[in-house]
Amino acid sequence: MSKLLIRAMVLPMTGPEVFYSRGEIGIDGDRIVSVGEEGSAPENFVPDRVLNLPNDVVMPGLINTHTHAAMTLLRSYADDLPLMPWLNEKVWPFEDKMTEEDIYWGTSLALCEMIRSGTTTMLDMYASMDQVAEAVLQAGTRAVLSRGLIGNGPNGERALQEGIDLVRRYQGAGQGRLKVMFGPHAPYTCSGEYLQKVKAHADRLGVGIHIHVAETLDEIKMIHDQYGKTPVEWLEELGLFGGHVVAAHCVHLTRKDMDILARNKVCVAYNPESNMKLNSGTAPITELRAQGIVVSLGTDGASSNNNLDLFGEMRSAAFQQKLRVNSTALPAYEVLEMATVNGAQSLGLEDVGMLAPGFKADLITVDLDQPHFYPRFSIPAHLAYVAHAGDVRMMMVDGKILMEDRKILTLDVHKVCQEAEIRAKRIANALNG
Amino acid sequence: MSKLLIRAMVLPMTGPEVFYSRGEIGIDGDRIVSVGEEGSAPENFVPDRVLNLPNDVVMPGLINTHTHAAMTLLRSYADDLPLMPWLNEKVWPFEDKMTEEDIYWGTSLALCEMIRSGTTTMLDMYASMDQVAEAVLQAGTRAVLSRGLIGNGPNGERALQEGIDLVRRYQGAGQGRLKVMFGPHAPYTCSGEYLQKVKAHADRLGVGIHIHVAETLDEIKMIHDQYGKTPVEWLEELGLFGGHVVAAHCVHLTRKDMDILARNKVCVAYNPESNMKLNSGTAPITELRAQGIVVSLGTDGASSNNNLDLFGEMRSAAFQQKLRVNSTALPAYEVLEMATVNGAQSLGLEDVGMLAPGFKADLITVDLDQPHFYPRFSIPAHLAYVAHAGDVRMMMVDGKILMEDRKILTLDVHKVCQEAEIRAKRIANALNG
Repeated sequence: MSKLLIRAMVLPMTGPEVFYSRGEIGIDGDRIVSVGEEGSAPENFVPDRVLNLPNDVVMPGLINTHTHAAMTLLRSYADDLPLMPWLNEKVWPFEDKMTEEDIYWGTSLALCEMIRSGTTTMLDMYASMDQVAEAVLQAGTRAVLSRGLIGNGPNGERALQEGIDLVRRYQGAGQGRLKVMFGPHAPYTCSGEYLQKVKAHADRLGVGIHIHVAETLDEIKMIHDQYGKTPVEWLEELGLFGGHVVAAHCVHLTRKDMDILARNKVCVAYNPESNMKLNSGTAPITELRAQGIVVSLGTDGASSNNNLDLFGEMRSAAFQQKLRVNSTALPAYEVLEMATVNGAQSLGLEDVGMLAPGFKADLITVDLDQPHFYPRFSIPAHLAYVAHAGDVRMMMVDGKILMEDRKILTLDVHKVCQEAEIRAKRIANALNG
Repeated sequence: MSKLLIRAMVLPMTGPEVFYSRGEIGIDGDRIVSVGEEGSAPENFVPDRVLNLPNDVVMPGLINTHTHAAMTLLRSYADDLPLMPWLNEKVWPFEDKMTEEDIYWGTSLALCEMIRSGTTTMLDMYASMDQVAEAVLQAGTRAVLSRGLIGNGPNGERALQEGIDLVRRYQGAGQGRLKVMFGPHAPYTCSGEYLQKVKAHADRLGVGIHIHVAETLDEIKMIHDQYGKTPVEWLEELGLFGGHVVAAHCVHLTRKDMDILARNKVCVAYNPESNMKLNSGTAPITELRAQGIVVSLGTDGASSNNNLDLFGEMRSAAFQQKLRVNSTALPAYEVLEMATVNGAQSLGLEDVGMLAPGFKADLITVDLDQPHFYPRFSIPAHLAYVAHAGDVRMMMVDGKILMEDRKILTLDVHKVCQEAEIRAKRIANALNG
């Protein structure tokens, strides 16, 4: 196990006042052993390598808690359309033609983009999740994987079995870098009976649930027409809550819904850019946080965003809430917490999301020696409101450097981009004659 | 005069269908002579240099039609505060301590950021505009400069005289790269009489007006209490409209206001991120454009944004309007037009904003050989919804290369950043003890 010392500014995300302007982090193998001002590493810590980055800030890797990685293949394929034609005529026919290999390469493309933009961990929901798992193992990032389950379709049972197999095969793989959840798609695409069956398997296997909830007003109406309740009330009645649940979107909630989410410790993944682009609405994030609900950030898929840049997502999250509430809503440090500490809590990862002794060495450095980062009044405000994807210089996951000087070390980026291009165009050509 | 041929993808912004996937642009001195597919340059065009960038897209330089450049010195100095304490306790005391030299260096910092992020032209409003002019001349960009005028303050007359002097000194300077307008701040900070005096001088000198209009509900109330009208009605009654006017913000408008703006051919500068961050509201951009009003984009100052990245601003503009109207609102190509063609129209610049023979060679290239730009289904969607500041590789203004391979050639970036850092911290220290 090699020992590394990083000398840089350090924003460990262990509290709003904690910042080391000339800091250092000691790393032994996959774990952080010390965090503090320069010279704070234990005397007996003799690094094999010292990384001097005095103009970079080290922070925890960002955590994307709701995405469909392979959908990068649909990036900029269909935009500016009404929701139903977009889904019916564009997204679903395209996805229907995606092979297992396409999903591998689409996910790899997403992972290239995530590494470049500082995302060390994702919560993914898609099909052919073995391919996703293999792509993540290759890339070296951390991921929580959920097989998307459309219970109302013809493949509901098969997909559920794949979800069960996924747990058996990949739970804890990659020295713990992979974790598995079940991914029942939404209350309007899965029957109550199916959702209860999924929940029973999840409980039996000791894994959590990742589900879309209350994303659009159409969904609210559909569930109300069918069950006479809100989606959140319906899911509670079914007994889906109570264990580990990540509910994506949660745009349209009643006061009672928020109480239910709080009481059941449901974690909410906020997707501000997707919610804007698809005209879904603005989620009541300030109210959810005031109730003590863990709220984290997600990009959703690249077809409704169209990138996977969590720096942009932080800015959109804060600005969106400021527009909705007032200019003091969701301040810089809090939105940084959502993308790091809260992301880890949301995924049940107890030793990532902060830089602290004993935590996994999942971290990034952001190159602050650029005009847009001067003057340096507030590093949290710079990271939340100024930074963008291209500012990330280095990434480490589980103590292993995945990107250095903006160059990805674990993936052949050129090949990934070319494969993605060829495969996406093949599908589009098959569909459009 | 040297001749340059750029071979790259070309998005000339001359129409939604015009795109050359293997294109070329011929440039002779400060002007574009040809735009088309490879091989389309005239036979007698013998370039002194050929720039081969097959994985870049060339597009017109972006145009920021509302900013206060020197306010980069306040970047991340004060965030997440209510509007009045933010202004009274933070922004205004800081600005009060800024010297002419501080304004020079703050503007230079803004120009470094603008060049890096693809902005070739800005419409600026501030004080000590001679300093701003000198900074722009040094940087090599294009700018329209307006001396900000607070008519109700003790310096209203002096500022107006400075505005007049600015026209005399800098109108057409830098081989036409500089243009001047008057900058009466807003209807609530200038009396009717003062605004009419400004307008008379503007007409006499043949220059336009740049003014904040209907930015907040507080302003609407203030003007209504004082004059019994909306700000737009009041400005029309004063006779401020009719010539060349750029009205920044225009968040809160009545139907009648929109008719007045359309009838008077007032141009509107939309600032989506500042409007979100300061909780101002969402401007009715779709309705304004439907009325044929020219709407362009601005970042506002770095204290309410906190960057000057027009790529981010395009995404925010489109997503914000989609959220407000529906998912088809403000499609990718239209928001690109706002940042280019419409920006030029707004500033009365007849030969920039598009890539066409006879137009000024104001252009940028965007490096599309990165994971987040694959697959390449729609270049406009990539530029509007995916791209960020760091993706710009090259910039040319007036036929002169200002940045190549992401390196700025006209400014000493290191010195600018250090000067900005020292000066901003000096002011903050003086204020905060």
